[in-house]
Amino acid sequence: MTQLDERPAAAPPTAPTQDLTTDPAEQPATDPATAWFAAFEDALVARDIDRAAGLFAATSFWRDLIAFSWNITTVENPAGVADLLAATLEGTDPSSFRLTERAETADGVTTAWFEFETAVGRGRGLVRIVDEGGPKAWTFLTSLYELKGHEEPQRDRRPMGAEHGATRERVTWLEKRQAEEAALGVDIQPYALVIGGGQGGIALGARLRQLGVPALVVDKHPRPGDQWRNRYKSLCLHDPVWYDHLPYLKFPENWPVFAPKDKIGDWLESYVKVMEVPYWSDTVVKSASYDDATSTWTVELERDGQPMTLRPTQLVLATGMSGKPNVPNLLGQDVFRGEQQHSSQHPGPDAYAGKKVVVIGSNNSAFDICGALWEHGADVTMVQRSSTHIVKSDTLMDIGLGDLYSERALAAGVTTEKADLIFASVPYRILHTFQIPLYEQMKERDAEFYDRLTKAGFELDWGEDGSGLFMKYLRRGSGYYIDVGAAELVADGQVRLAHGQVDHLTETAVVLEDGTVLEADLVVYATGYGSMNGWAADLISQEVADKVGKCWGLGSDTTRDPGPWEGEQRNMWKPTQQPNLWFHGGNLHQSRHYSLYLALQLKARQAGLDTPVYGRQEVHHLG
Amino acid sequence: MTQLDERPAAAPPTAPTQDLTTDPAEQPATDPATAWFAAFEDALVARDIDRAAGLFAATSFWRDLIAFSWNITTVENPAGVADLLAATLEGTDPSSFRLTERAETADGVTTAWFEFETAVGRGRGLVRIVDEGGPKAWTFLTSLYELKGHEEPQRDRRPMGAEHGATRERVTWLEKRQAEEAALGVDIQPYALVIGGGQGGIALGARLRQLGVPALVVDKHPRPGDQWRNRYKSLCLHDPVWYDHLPYLKFPENWPVFAPKDKIGDWLESYVKVMEVPYWSDTVVKSASYDDATSTWTVELERDGQPMTLRPTQLVLATGMSGKPNVPNLLGQDVFRGEQQHSSQHPGPDAYAGKKVVVIGSNNSAFDICGALWEHGADVTMVQRSSTHIVKSDTLMDIGLGDLYSERALAAGVTTEKADLIFASVPYRILHTFQIPLYEQMKERDAEFYDRLTKAGFELDWGEDGSGLFMKYLRRGSGYYIDVGAAELVADGQVRLAHGQVDHLTETAVVLEDGTVLEADLVVYATGYGSMNGWAADLISQEVADKVGKCWGLGSDTTRDPGPWEGEQRNMWKPTQQPNLWFHGGNLHQSRHYSLYLALQLKARQAGLDTPVYGRQEVHHLG
Repeated sequence: MTQLDERPAAAPPTAPTQDLTTDPAEQPATDPATAWFAAFEDALVARDIDRAAGLFAATSFWRDLIAFSWNITTVENPAGVADLLAATLEGTDPSSFRLTERAETADGVTTAWFEFETAVGRGRGLVRIVDEGGPKAWTFLTSLYELKGHEEPQRDRRPMGAEHGATRERVTWLEKRQAEEAALGVDIQPYALVIGGGQGGIALGARLRQLGVPALVVDKHPRPGDQWRNRYKSLCLHDPVWYDHLPYLKFPENWPVFAPKDKIGDWLESYVKVMEVPYWSDTVVKSASYDDATSTWTVELERDGQPMTLRPTQLVLATGMSGKPNVPNLLGQDVFRGEQQHSSQHPGPDAYAGKKVVVIGSNNSAFDICGALWEHGADVTMVQRSSTHIVKSDTLMDIGLGDLYSERALAAGVTTEKADLIFASVPYRILHTFQIPLYEQMKERDAEFYDRLTKAGFELDWGEDGSGLFMKYLRRGSGYYIDVGAAELVADGQVRLAHGQVDHLTETAVVLEDGTVLEADLVVYATGYGSMNGWAADLISQEVADKVGKCWGLGSDTTRDPGPWEGEQRNMWKPTQQPNLWFHGGNLHQSRHYSLYLALQLKARQAGLDTPVYGRQEVHHLG
Repeated sequence: MTQLDERPAAAPPTAPTQDLTTDPAEQPATDPATAWFAAFEDALVARDIDRAAGLFAATSFWRDLIAFSWNITTVENPAGVADLLAATLEGTDPSSFRLTERAETADGVTTAWFEFETAVGRGRGLVRIVDEGGPKAWTFLTSLYELKGHEEPQRDRRPMGAEHGATRERVTWLEKRQAEEAALGVDIQPYALVIGGGQGGIALGARLRQLGVPALVVDKHPRPGDQWRNRYKSLCLHDPVWYDHLPYLKFPENWPVFAPKDKIGDWLESYVKVMEVPYWSDTVVKSASYDDATSTWTVELERDGQPMTLRPTQLVLATGMSGKPNVPNLLGQDVFRGEQQHSSQHPGPDAYAGKKVVVIGSNNSAFDICGALWEHGADVTMVQRSSTHIVKSDTLMDIGLGDLYSERALAAGVTTEKADLIFASVPYRILHTFQIPLYEQMKERDAEFYDRLTKAGFELDWGEDGSGLFMKYLRRGSGYYIDVGAAELVADGQVRLAHGQVDHLTETAVVLEDGTVLEADLVVYATGYGSMNGWAADLISQEVADKVGKCWGLGSDTTRDPGPWEGEQRNMWKPTQQPNLWFHGGNLHQSRHYSLYLALQLKARQAGLDTPVYGRQEVHHLG
């Protein structure tokens, strides 16, 4: 969700979206990128860390996605680069840097796509070069995309399917699949156990299967996709289709922009089948404990109601970046005679026509639920407890995402894969500076709408620094609504608005701290979710949860994202302080892109590669 | 399955596979293609048929896929062109011919991709131009790809999914789908009923859904994909993945080259779900009759065992291009004590280890079944009744398909969609002349293999004119084996070979006409399938079947494909002599590509467009 066209005057342009068929050999040898890589590789080969670090601008960012660091990490400025290289250069042994497209220069910044090799794998990246007494890297993204000797069987490496020749006792694909399913967890332990089979677990499961890592995804629901099917019935994705593809198999070209929840559910179920993801439905994990001596987990679970024990080496919590539902503890909840539901339990509006409903909260779920209830004739009041950031969906799509994820982007050659890397190449440290002007544009475009909302008493915000929705998502994962229509109901007064904290419930009403009494037949707590860390506490132990610390957030020192600055999302897709414990989650974009790096980290360990972790994050906050 | 690189000296090159990003505006105005289209459109606008026909070479071919003719038809030479234009020009009102890529000239032939419009739609095509006293079209392909006002909702026309705004009594996607499924066939009659839910019916069903034609696909099996799952267990596709994509949703990049039958079955089942194809499983059609007065069909069927009546306007038989199983009527079949199966009923080899099996026939199914039986320890004899054409799968992929359907083709810019049109642009009349040299190459490459087969007594052929496998497929749909290994078993004598016709069966053996006695516990009749026409006779009436006549074949006057020359496959995907009755079928390639033209023909009729059919085929042969 970044767009660099409208940028601060000093900021660099987005990556070029040029003709892929251009022969990079046509590049004049004197362009800054070619010169820079020649100097950089020369310094690396000479193991001259100071010289290599000197090729970075005074203010610069190197983001590495497991290629050098076996971590997801960003270092800053020449000193940070030197630190990273001192720890990783010898082991990484990088080589063969080469441009894959012609570099493009605009506004004094040269942008170039490149590939390279390491001792164990192949990588690609994106660099932005400025002139500071010669070409210097300003942003530098390196990412590993495959391990040598463990290339994925696809395209010209795809399996034959039919094995030609005549072989006694040949077994068919179906027989192999059936034997494998029967053995997994019984005769063969999964190397990696993925708890949670939503988009995150499924995407990771697909990648692990492609990489030949014995893995298993388990989920409590009866069918893959039920994670979506079971949500409130009006739910559609808030992100558009171009942003939402899973790995390997893109949505067809007729897929809706904002997919309805049941359609996504069906897609996930089909995807599990088509990609042959090892997946156990109806499976509840009861507990997990780690044995330091054997470096394996003991996981107790119930499959179809039957107790089982698994002993995986790696444990991945893919139980949702939002963690467990938050239900506030309120006086009078026991005396209230109506229904009370967390938003995750809300079935939809059908049963509530003519009923009085109070929805506590004013973010995505609250608005969606209020809107659907109003549409079906309920009498709805929203209780706003704190200010909310609202952007109109069309505006967000156009201004916020359009350059990277849209038909327009595709037509300009920005494939999903390129968009993911462009997006990943903007350092979190300065991402907000590119976001602020976009949200200023949005504010201006929809000024009349915001004016009406404010007049209706709605408390708006744009994030503490005005950087808007995506930064809120990365920092705290809450605090916003992507408006698909329900905000108009609040602006019009069709959905009534109340303010403040709930004091208590009576038999028939919600009473706010200011004494306002809201009669209710139904109370919906659209009060969000806890940290993923809570899952670790529940499934493993409080001790391990505390050792791992807070998940998500950047350390931006804004509400719900305390400092110090981390530079990356805490504990996500990378080594934690607990050996062999990993966290995976996020929206469909993150599930797609970051599952690659998590899968490669697991594959490297399963294959017995040396994976020294540079800059493993320290823990500053409990869950 | 055509490749034009190795061509007769006088033949034109294949279509260019050039950079799609080239701006056609850069084309010099004097190139032959630009000049030709200027002259052609000028003549068409002037309605000067002689002048337009004069722009075709003395020997030339115009293949039209429903753009001008509302038919699938090929006319030849200026006289044929004049005849087509005289009947269709006024109604078609073609305009706006324009090159979509730079034309390429090689060996005296200029090849160009183009687009154009008609009164009701938009088309694209491929022309090959030679110099015969000025630029003259040698082959000219025109195809309709969409109807104005009925464009498919995809890419930038895709549905929103979430309907923004607030609407009282909004219904969700799931509710709409459920209501639609409940109403179809009960409150709402399908405009088109497609009988048969294999790849053909499913691909057509998906296209009709995209076009907004109320349609229903019915199939007797419990689940989509069972058409494949129920075949002999060693079956894999004989065509490679690049040739096999369905419309809209391509196989992922890890899909096997030759997909195992159960995997294809799962894909088809997922596809039905994802593409929202209206599909009734467990549905057996009992009879169909056409009412000329109302122009509708009355179709009696059983759904889940319950009788129902449907009244569709259009009826499509997609029951398999191979028609019903052929089981020969042999003396002694009633006294034979072992098992007898048609190849379509053969379950696979597991139950037959150590048993004596006689397989009657020597084409694809016979070889696959013999190979799998041998692999599982059966004692197998193949009875060859007539000569068979064999090509090794790898050789066929490389020489026969590689330029159009392969990773190599994709890397060269030949998308599946372009490959389909290039393939369609080679007139059937001369297709064999391009095929013969390919098969000569194959014969040479695998000479040692053929030598061993011949020495083992196997009777080989290469088609009557040496044009090989694909022409056999188009002409008669039988007579070949794509070797994936089992031919070696015959060459080695591991699978025994017998020759001639079966005279009778005894209690324990198959006896051939020459007196050879083949002891058997199991007899497999790999004796092929009848004509599709047989389905019409069974489901509708012999009278309608006879009115429609033979399906499939080109009229090549070779074995099982009697003349006169038809120029197109009889009755396939185009209007027949029976109003509102259509035949759809063939391999995955044909199901993908020709379903477009059949779907557009049905859509045009449903939308009430005028669809005068030029050159409706006459019937020369009964089924």
